[in-house]
Amino acid sequence: MVEAITPINEDFTQWYTDICLKAELVDYSTVKGCVILRPYGYAIWENIMHLLDARFKATGHENVAMPLFIPESLLQKEKDHVEGFAPEVAWVTMGGSEPLEDRLCVRPTSETLFCDHFAHVLHSYRDLPMKYNQWCSVVRWEKTTRPFLRTREFWWQEGHTIHETAQEAIEETEQQLETYADFCENELNIPVLKGKKTDKEKFAGAEATYTIEAMMHDGKALQSGTSHYFGDGFSRAFGVQFTGRDNTLQYPFQTSWGMSTRLIGAIIMTHGDDEGLILPPAIAPYQVVIVPVAAHKPGVLEKAEELRARLSKFVRVKLDDSENSPGWKFAQWEMKGVPLRLEIGPKDIENGQCVLVRRDNREKAFTKLENLEAAIPALLDALGKSLYARAEANRAGRTWTATTMDEVLERAGGENGYIKTMWCGNLACEEMMKEKAGLSSRCMPFAQEHLSDVCPCCGKPAKAMVVWGKAY
Amino acid sequence: MVEAITPINEDFTQWYTDICLKAELVDYSTVKGCVILRPYGYAIWENIMHLLDARFKATGHENVAMPLFIPESLLQKEKDHVEGFAPEVAWVTMGGSEPLEDRLCVRPTSETLFCDHFAHVLHSYRDLPMKYNQWCSVVRWEKTTRPFLRTREFWWQEGHTIHETAQEAIEETEQQLETYADFCENELNIPVLKGKKTDKEKFAGAEATYTIEAMMHDGKALQSGTSHYFGDGFSRAFGVQFTGRDNTLQYPFQTSWGMSTRLIGAIIMTHGDDEGLILPPAIAPYQVVIVPVAAHKPGVLEKAEELRARLSKFVRVKLDDSENSPGWKFAQWEMKGVPLRLEIGPKDIENGQCVLVRRDNREKAFTKLENLEAAIPALLDALGKSLYARAEANRAGRTWTATTMDEVLERAGGENGYIKTMWCGNLACEEMMKEKAGLSSRCMPFAQEHLSDVCPCCGKPAKAMVVWGKAY
Repeated sequence: MVEAITPINEDFTQWYTDICLKAELVDYSTVKGCVILRPYGYAIWENIMHLLDARFKATGHENVAMPLFIPESLLQKEKDHVEGFAPEVAWVTMGGSEPLEDRLCVRPTSETLFCDHFAHVLHSYRDLPMKYNQWCSVVRWEKTTRPFLRTREFWWQEGHTIHETAQEAIEETEQQLETYADFCENELNIPVLKGKKTDKEKFAGAEATYTIEAMMHDGKALQSGTSHYFGDGFSRAFGVQFTGRDNTLQYPFQTSWGMSTRLIGAIIMTHGDDEGLILPPAIAPYQVVIVPVAAHKPGVLEKAEELRARLSKFVRVKLDDSENSPGWKFAQWEMKGVPLRLEIGPKDIENGQCVLVRRDNREKAFTKLENLEAAIPALLDALGKSLYARAEANRAGRTWTATTMDEVLERAGGENGYIKTMWCGNLACEEMMKEKAGLSSRCMPFAQEHLSDVCPCCGKPAKAMVVWGKAY
Repeated sequence: MVEAITPINEDFTQWYTDICLKAELVDYSTVKGCVILRPYGYAIWENIMHLLDARFKATGHENVAMPLFIPESLLQKEKDHVEGFAPEVAWVTMGGSEPLEDRLCVRPTSETLFCDHFAHVLHSYRDLPMKYNQWCSVVRWEKTTRPFLRTREFWWQEGHTIHETAQEAIEETEQQLETYADFCENELNIPVLKGKKTDKEKFAGAEATYTIEAMMHDGKALQSGTSHYFGDGFSRAFGVQFTGRDNTLQYPFQTSWGMSTRLIGAIIMTHGDDEGLILPPAIAPYQVVIVPVAAHKPGVLEKAEELRARLSKFVRVKLDDSENSPGWKFAQWEMKGVPLRLEIGPKDIENGQCVLVRRDNREKAFTKLENLEAAIPALLDALGKSLYARAEANRAGRTWTATTMDEVLERAGGENGYIKTMWCGNLACEEMMKEKAGLSSRCMPFAQEHLSDVCPCCGKPAKAMVVWGKAY
């Protein structure tokens, strides 16, 4: 039998690790803190890349490739940025057998490289906007790591754009956050909370950081995508200029935005259950797995192969014709989270039907073979909507309001979840929430509510509503 | 006007650099020896990746992602391999502010990482073959660099497979070389010479290296793809084992194969001319550019946009509706190598026609608008075949036979090209060819000929025919 995994409500951390390994998403590598994306894990990432890339291109973004290295002298040009990233980068100090004069860091993010390039290629307002994206891996020298959530190397996309006006750049920042939110909700079936980060939590060097936060099964938050507005701070630091409409030299306004393989962690921890992974149909490497029953009986394998060929025209389908038992295959493909299982045996063939089993609720539907073209997409769609509804219900059941510090502390001592409070806007109170309640500010949601007039920490007038939580 | 480039026959090196920069394929970066792939250059690479990836998947290969770093202790496990690569790698010696105990090199190629992974995940003959590929960048600390041809970082794919038997692995090596050759000839319209490398030129650690060699416009050779057979050398060095059909522990047999952004250099130097780049239709970011003539006249831009929408259903098409003059646009898109230009002005619209201009020979065809769905694919196909024929003619005119050292030296003193000779198989004669004639062995072609009985260097009995040349 397929080896069982740790039950989800017994030890969530071990359950997560079990899925990463037993669904064959990753392997640990000899390089400490770095993982290997195995074929099944990489296929999920390929589907994510494919869907996101199409969205970026539809909104006029172009892909480029920047160097992997950043000279130390370049990294140092923007003060806040270098302070934020220098402590956690890997340094190349030797090329071949010779020491480097200006050592190189392996990119933790590429704002500095893009600015340097923009300074070369930007001349006139007619060249604007420049809307670039790159797919690559980046390196941050983390001390504690977990597959997908925090690894020293991870894979992502980073968009970098420059614009003629601040207004345009802010609109780009917002548009890309909307793209991320829509992608998470409609393709990954994960509800997200959209908002602005506090100054404490924003990106090193940004004027403003927008975020989408997803709530995991255990009530902890996962920052799932961010979009940054830089004003003209980097442009000034890097001397990026253009001749404006009025013939004067001007600095463009800049954004960047990123999503990463962390999304695979979000998928696991939002949708998975005691049997393993449950994959959103939009990014599942296989949306349907065909398992022949009594495969040795005449005609069964042939029929299964005929169905595979037919289904491959409209879904990603796998026929498991290996020598393992049907029961083993059921467990194996449940572990791997394939949304639908199609079982077909001699009796089904006689009756011109098959069994379709949903991964999420195990509902079985006897389906006439001639109806598969309609039934499968409908079931996949329903499954995606169910995943979303279940995640939304979990989030709703774990979201609370607090107006006093006592309420905050009482809530924070119980189950994980979101705690909504008003906030005065001061760093001191944000730090107090961390110290006393163990909570970090997830964001100031775009959808603000008025819960009370004052900050529960200091009693001073409130400036905004903040959602707090524990985060990965 | 678009700035002219250096004429191809005046200074081929400068002509090449001019195209790289003025067709906006690359930008130099602040990181010495590394380039930036700009949107137009990256779009070519995306098309190459897309087409190659489909071929790899159709032959059962799966994509994975390995770490960027190789611990020094891992790199050292295979003796020939480390000797070949260690002198030209970049070393990470610091993570954050702490020195690393086992320093890490930035991968120059990933055989060692794949072997380490195979050792984890391989158990039984039932797991074989494992046929993996990854798309990534690699780093080799080259002293002299040129865009696409030799840069410290470059983008490529590297396939790594393990098999139950030597025979299967050899067949994989050969199959992948055939895939490469077919891709170059049918998609990039570049004829290639297929053969086996001499021991001197083979990959560090390989038992055999197969290659495809392309001839550039100037008669120099460009190694364009290689496929390596490793036997079980790496498996033994890394302890990769499986339980065989007879229940004994065995070592699998291994291959690797790679193609890189070097192919873009091959495209430039095989097909380009004095006006700039000429792109093979299969990988051109835009296969057709629409240039409206007298665009201010009523109805012209509307018609051009209507055609763009219509053509986008079957070709990659760009409408240049910028404010530049038609003449400027013609020169600009010729520089960028767009295979077909579609001109449309008021008179054309009146006559229900347009002008289609081929980039390679500038042939103009007045074409009825209702015929575009047939005419454009036919012209693109003809253009691709012409590019191939022209490259093949160049190669044929620059391929010579020599049976004595005097003939070799006379030929090597003239124009660049391929010189075919017999060879005794000894390294000393290969080195003599380099020293006296400045020639390196390109390969021992699969299509062997018997030119004479003896090696022209030493007079000893010949073992094989070798093609020699100067190479990038």
